[in-house]
Amino acid sequence: MKRWNIVLTGYGTVGKQVARLLGERRERYREKYSADVRLVGAARSTHAVYNSDGLDAQTLEALVQSGKAAKMKAGTEFLAASKADVLIETGPSQFETGGPGLAYIRQALEQGMHAISVSKGALVVDYAGLSRLAKQRGVMLKISGATAAALPTIDLLEYNLAGCEIATVEGIFTGTANFVLSSMMNEGMTCEQAIEQAQRMGIAEPDPSFDVDGWDTACKVTILANAAFGGQLKLTDVPKMSVRTVTPDQISGWKQAGLTPKLIGRIRKTEEGVTASVELTAVDAEHPFAGVNGTTKAIRVQTDVMGDLLVVGGKSDPVAAAAAALKDLEHILGQFR
Amino acid sequence: MKRWNIVLTGYGTVGKQVARLLGERRERYREKYSADVRLVGAARSTHAVYNSDGLDAQTLEALVQSGKAAKMKAGTEFLAASKADVLIETGPSQFETGGPGLAYIRQALEQGMHAISVSKGALVVDYAGLSRLAKQRGVMLKISGATAAALPTIDLLEYNLAGCEIATVEGIFTGTANFVLSSMMNEGMTCEQAIEQAQRMGIAEPDPSFDVDGWDTACKVTILANAAFGGQLKLTDVPKMSVRTVTPDQISGWKQAGLTPKLIGRIRKTEEGVTASVELTAVDAEHPFAGVNGTTKAIRVQTDVMGDLLVVGGKSDPVAAAAAALKDLEHILGQFR
Repeated sequence: MKRWNIVLTGYGTVGKQVARLLGERRERYREKYSADVRLVGAARSTHAVYNSDGLDAQTLEALVQSGKAAKMKAGTEFLAASKADVLIETGPSQFETGGPGLAYIRQALEQGMHAISVSKGALVVDYAGLSRLAKQRGVMLKISGATAAALPTIDLLEYNLAGCEIATVEGIFTGTANFVLSSMMNEGMTCEQAIEQAQRMGIAEPDPSFDVDGWDTACKVTILANAAFGGQLKLTDVPKMSVRTVTPDQISGWKQAGLTPKLIGRIRKTEEGVTASVELTAVDAEHPFAGVNGTTKAIRVQTDVMGDLLVVGGKSDPVAAAAAALKDLEHILGQFR
Repeated sequence: MKRWNIVLTGYGTVGKQVARLLGERRERYREKYSADVRLVGAARSTHAVYNSDGLDAQTLEALVQSGKAAKMKAGTEFLAASKADVLIETGPSQFETGGPGLAYIRQALEQGMHAISVSKGALVVDYAGLSRLAKQRGVMLKISGATAAALPTIDLLEYNLAGCEIATVEGIFTGTANFVLSSMMNEGMTCEQAIEQAQRMGIAEPDPSFDVDGWDTACKVTILANAAFGGQLKLTDVPKMSVRTVTPDQISGWKQAGLTPKLIGRIRKTEEGVTASVELTAVDAEHPFAGVNGTTKAIRVQTDVMGDLLVVGGKSDPVAAAAAALKDLEHILGQFR
């Protein structure tokens, strides 16, 4: 039985679900991969906890309740001392510098750990560098949790369609933006009303800008373009549109014309490489995205020899994000068993 | 650069496309997997050709034009002498005994070769035995080409949703049956007329029974239930319905009720294990399969923590089937690089 030590940075909403599912699935990992998987370390912004035999629920709870009680400082020394096999990074995203997430992932790969990122900041800022580093060290960098989580995106491009030439990718990658547009179309709300409802339902953040102004979709297409198409895109290379520009007049015009507005992330292969964009597009009733409503996400891919594929669904909650990270973990366990 | 020798049994419509794509993708395999992939052997029903350096197009053409000119006999000795690393089996399916396909796959696994099956017969008859054998020998048995090919099915259950509990799977797995039903609903044809049109278009076989009487779907759900859920189902355990039972009266009744008939393959996890069936079901307009028309296929999966996923599309031609087999090959190259 091979021992697999996991360390979790950014022990917040998603991190807690990762810890819970890791515990629930211990037996599965033993049976399926002959892997004794243990969460040995967890860090929040300033403090961390560690136990080489595996952390118990009380210790994790203590980290949340009073970081300082944990005594150990979060950061470089914590990660180095953890001697983990896999880092799972679920901290808050920082899109200009990559923040602590980028530092953790870089350090983990340098130390020969596999890395799974749920947060997007590090990947948006330096996917290419991290990917190169992982290759040099012979470890894996996995990103499902950062690229629409339970909706398969990077898997689809790299695994399900391995060997195909992919010409275009388009997707509804941000559930919140789709919820706002759907509410405007189907329930006659203004954009402000739809955002407020989304906030009341816990779908939108107090500051909704990241989701409704196209940033979230832009991050996802940037990462996917760089990861699946070898692109060198920066977030600033991706033109964006916002759901907040939509007026009631536009809504009634689209309704009359039988069109449905969608915030669509697009990736196109070009002769020079790859481009990406976030476009507010009114699709006709025949378009496969026309019926994708509420917080539901979708991806559509055009290939040379396998035809088109459309994938719709995948939950958007913290449990699903954690499950996506642990799917990545299983891929690592399967590859390095 | 690691050398990978491929042998192809059943060199027919799909086999030819496998050979062509293998040639076109040599550079890709070298770059991506450091793999020097060569097709060294190909067999038809009675004769075979072999060249340890790789087969050229003329030799393959000679095998098709006049099997006997190939001199080498197909069968056990041919496969043993090929010393291949991977068998790709694309021969005609034999659903009672597994036929030559089963013998080839069993022999390949016993000799320590990986096996990729596009044909269904061997898998329907003895998936469990072959899978056990592959595990014992430390090699892979891959089945994408036999389970809806370009539509991801086994990948979806085992890779994209790794770690999830899957409660139910349902799918439109047979493009021809869906084409016949769609033509009856949308173009007012009788079943016979729709089958004749499908035959003229090269979509249906001269004997359409395999596709329209539910056998093809039954084979696919049998294989998937056994492969993804550890089932022990035989083809005879799967109740089937046929598209040919549909009458014009039923069609007009469904139209009036806003329903759409679909031939749906279902897999359900039960407390005792797993069950599968092929059901002719009239779905309502809200059902995600209602809009899946013509030869288009689809699969829908319900999970515990990732929600529902729907996948629609994937071409159904011989090139797509070959591409699905070569996707499997890339998974092997990636795992054993």
